[in-house]
Amino acid sequence: MENILSVIPLGGVEEIGLNMTVLQYGDDIIVVDAGLMFPEEDMLGVDFVIPAFSYLLANREKIKGIILTHGHEDHTGALPFLLKEINMPVYGTALTLGLVKEKLCEHNLEKTELISVRPRDRVKLGVFDVEFVRVTHSIVDGVGLGIRTPRGLVVHTGDFKLDPTPVDGQLMDFHKFSEYGEEGTLLLLSDSTNAENGGFTYSEKEVRRAFVDIFSQAKGRIIIAIFASHIHRIQQAIDVAMQYQKKVILCGKSIVSNAQIALDLGYLSIPKNTWLRLEDLKKLRDDEVVIITTGSQGEPMSVLSRIATDEHKFIKIKEGDTVILSAKMIPGNERSVGRIINHLFRRGADVVYEKVSEVHVSGHASKEELKLMLNLVRPKYFMPVHGEYRHLVYHSLLAKKLDIPKENIFIMKNGNVLEISDNGASMNARVPSGRIFIDGKGIGDVEEMVLRDRMRLAHDGIVLILLGIEKLTGNIVSGPDIISRGFVFEDASQEVINNVRGLLADTIKGLDRELISDSSLLKAKMRNTLKKYLRNTMDRRPMIMPIIFEV
Amino acid sequence: MENILSVIPLGGVEEIGLNMTVLQYGDDIIVVDAGLMFPEEDMLGVDFVIPAFSYLLANREKIKGIILTHGHEDHTGALPFLLKEINMPVYGTALTLGLVKEKLCEHNLEKTELISVRPRDRVKLGVFDVEFVRVTHSIVDGVGLGIRTPRGLVVHTGDFKLDPTPVDGQLMDFHKFSEYGEEGTLLLLSDSTNAENGGFTYSEKEVRRAFVDIFSQAKGRIIIAIFASHIHRIQQAIDVAMQYQKKVILCGKSIVSNAQIALDLGYLSIPKNTWLRLEDLKKLRDDEVVIITTGSQGEPMSVLSRIATDEHKFIKIKEGDTVILSAKMIPGNERSVGRIINHLFRRGADVVYEKVSEVHVSGHASKEELKLMLNLVRPKYFMPVHGEYRHLVYHSLLAKKLDIPKENIFIMKNGNVLEISDNGASMNARVPSGRIFIDGKGIGDVEEMVLRDRMRLAHDGIVLILLGIEKLTGNIVSGPDIISRGFVFEDASQEVINNVRGLLADTIKGLDRELISDSSLLKAKMRNTLKKYLRNTMDRRPMIMPIIFEV
Repeated sequence: MENILSVIPLGGVEEIGLNMTVLQYGDDIIVVDAGLMFPEEDMLGVDFVIPAFSYLLANREKIKGIILTHGHEDHTGALPFLLKEINMPVYGTALTLGLVKEKLCEHNLEKTELISVRPRDRVKLGVFDVEFVRVTHSIVDGVGLGIRTPRGLVVHTGDFKLDPTPVDGQLMDFHKFSEYGEEGTLLLLSDSTNAENGGFTYSEKEVRRAFVDIFSQAKGRIIIAIFASHIHRIQQAIDVAMQYQKKVILCGKSIVSNAQIALDLGYLSIPKNTWLRLEDLKKLRDDEVVIITTGSQGEPMSVLSRIATDEHKFIKIKEGDTVILSAKMIPGNERSVGRIINHLFRRGADVVYEKVSEVHVSGHASKEELKLMLNLVRPKYFMPVHGEYRHLVYHSLLAKKLDIPKENIFIMKNGNVLEISDNGASMNARVPSGRIFIDGKGIGDVEEMVLRDRMRLAHDGIVLILLGIEKLTGNIVSGPDIISRGFVFEDASQEVINNVRGLLADTIKGLDRELISDSSLLKAKMRNTLKKYLRNTMDRRPMIMPIIFEV
Repeated sequence: MENILSVIPLGGVEEIGLNMTVLQYGDDIIVVDAGLMFPEEDMLGVDFVIPAFSYLLANREKIKGIILTHGHEDHTGALPFLLKEINMPVYGTALTLGLVKEKLCEHNLEKTELISVRPRDRVKLGVFDVEFVRVTHSIVDGVGLGIRTPRGLVVHTGDFKLDPTPVDGQLMDFHKFSEYGEEGTLLLLSDSTNAENGGFTYSEKEVRRAFVDIFSQAKGRIIIAIFASHIHRIQQAIDVAMQYQKKVILCGKSIVSNAQIALDLGYLSIPKNTWLRLEDLKKLRDDEVVIITTGSQGEPMSVLSRIATDEHKFIKIKEGDTVILSAKMIPGNERSVGRIINHLFRRGADVVYEKVSEVHVSGHASKEELKLMLNLVRPKYFMPVHGEYRHLVYHSLLAKKLDIPKENIFIMKNGNVLEISDNGASMNARVPSGRIFIDGKGIGDVEEMVLRDRMRLAHDGIVLILLGIEKLTGNIVSGPDIISRGFVFEDASQEVINNVRGLLADTIKGLDRELISDSSLLKAKMRNTLKKYLRNTMDRRPMIMPIIFEV
């Protein structure tokens, strides 16, 4: 075991989000990222999902620390849950730690040791020597990693794109990645999110052009929805606002807090007289106002959503307003975003979004960039990460085109272990892995069965059969009564309910006393009768729950 | 009233789908289309939605007939429900009626009078003189309408694009639309589906290039998922299959039935020895096989979905297979389609879809085509139809650019009446309108309240409180017991359940006898107590149902 390097994705190779990778050599473990994932549409009522980390719990004494590549929640959102179980030092750049700190305080984890690093810093964690390498992405201060291990150099890109003209002028550290290629890289883990997309991803600066175009034509107020962590997008909105002598109001808890953090750390620049408060809104002429807020995904409680449905206290949409949704419609959100757009149009606003204008560019590398990264780093082994299976497949096709041998490319599942030893690399071992559902304050108490029940309830509702039985005699003393929720509109469908009640009464009458006195048999009988009846007559399958009171 | 022309969209101007428009003049009514809509994500368990047509029920004796523009379900799917209530003649082209006939038989409506028309035919319906005009779209045999009324000419485009090279060589009837412009058009209703999209929509023939590209490289079997009604797409797949000496197997009830109808009516051409049956599959070499099927939207019971999850009886995916999803991922379906793609990749297939190859083009006109239509027809009044509010807005912006006065453009809601008289056009009147939910065999028995309940159940499940009370004394004889579904995993959360039970028992103990004997008060008390407790401790809001048995 001792001279084997193990690389274990615990999340992020079967989904977008949930990113978490473990590196182990002998008795030393480091963790890269601890991300969450937003629920898929069959995870009803789940707020978000984190990777199961029982492997880390079982090996807690080996863990030297966790390294964060950047501050997005799909890389940091599981951190509080991990730190609650295992205390460990957290390494990251200033903005990443700034954003994380906020969250940790909410979870009473303010005592966590946070170690701020800068690009090109090197940190020794057990046998691992971790170097931080600047990358460009849709959040400021992202890094990739060059991790020197006893078996060789492991390069992890983090999330990245090759932005040739970043907003802050801080280029991706091409030279360092190039140096890794020269030095000889054992293994590359690279971001697969956009591996389906041809060509190059546009520079973040392209968005400025769209903003200028819109700002120059807008007659009234401008409202822009941006991801709260997208500091460069916010900076560009502010810059263009200043160019047109407008004032900026940030609206929404997360965006104000993130902007303040970025401002304090020097990642954002807003002249004092440009950043006004929401209270100042009424003092301004409409054509002076730029409101920057969140809610680009149509999230029901977001500021934009409340504005769109007239539920915001201070901001009401009126004729002449321009609303910009400066974000991608994330698959699964299109319909809710579409509804927001309709609401805004109906109230007289001009609405501009990705589909009709260039108000958004992606933060992830497209095919040509991914190829360049592979060519720069020239790894012996390659592991595409950050994506669903299809993204990993497309990324691995690129690697094959660049003559990385098929047997050196590893498409992993969460929990698969890539072991690299003197005998080469192999993917045979597994460690426990999985997803933990977070619903409200509950961690992991919602499992597959509960979700299946919710799906069933969501689809056809629930029908309760209430029956009172005298224990001694087996006589029916009350019922059968029917109560339903989410099934049919009871007032309108009294007939159905009556039929069902009659049917069940007949069924019970036809049973012999012995069967009636066995309540589990009686329940099964009633459930089956009703199930069959509803399927045949109505083509519906509600959840059926017989409840028997024995007196 | 008598010299007023009323145009009333009953559906299709607040959504994609649900298309249905009423034209009325005096005592004569005609209906254009009767479409369904697939449910939005908050319409839990609803199979599909149809427009409410109580206005037609109330005016049934005036109806001269219904005209179908083409055979897509968003234009014909509500027809059986309408015809069950009101018998009326149905006008449409041969393929449209061929597809509709099938559905009507399923609903025991085979006695409906179906009147087949051809492009440039004219039909007199009361005061209305309806001319059918060929358009190109993603289904064969679509038509627009030129409806001459006592007030002037009303032109309805139906769904259309301006395909310069249609697969069957049958061009859109530009000349007729141009003639309408010369003659003078009072009102144009035009398809807004793609009004957000710049430029021109590509010709259907472009898909052939992608097919040729894929077929020429594929080493094994080819499986193509296509909408069952997209006869031209199917034709192109067949043509390219023949070009590469392959055999075609159609798989799936709807696609076989539609292809047979199209073949019988001469809209599809397949040489006998090219169309084989599923049973012949085992006789063929892999590189001879092209399977055309449905399921491009990831529908759970579709052939493609079953193939992707190894649940299909005859077709198992293997290394070397190529799967083409030749369709748009409709918003809301991306995640289920994504899952299908992952499953197929995992089983060794190459998967090609809209995002990575040009295997789909839209059937709807983009901005430049919409402008051309407006310029050809030169209407006095304009009503954008077929779209959500935002699509109608973008369409109306185009019309404004073409100098149609703002006050002559009417963005309607379902049920709004556009009245055109000697005094011009106005949009003041309303007729009843709405949506009817179809769930299984139930029509309209699922209403907003039921959907709200389902949403609630879906989100946090249901908690039942069972309590037995002696009626005379008010003594508790059993319970409180807790049963939950879709709430927490009961085995794992026995503690929660115990706490809840204890809490309720304490609550009841603290109540005075009088309150206990009032079961509705007792229920409210228990519900509120539990609600508050679960919100505070778990941040969850399940449906809570106290059930009291009085003995």
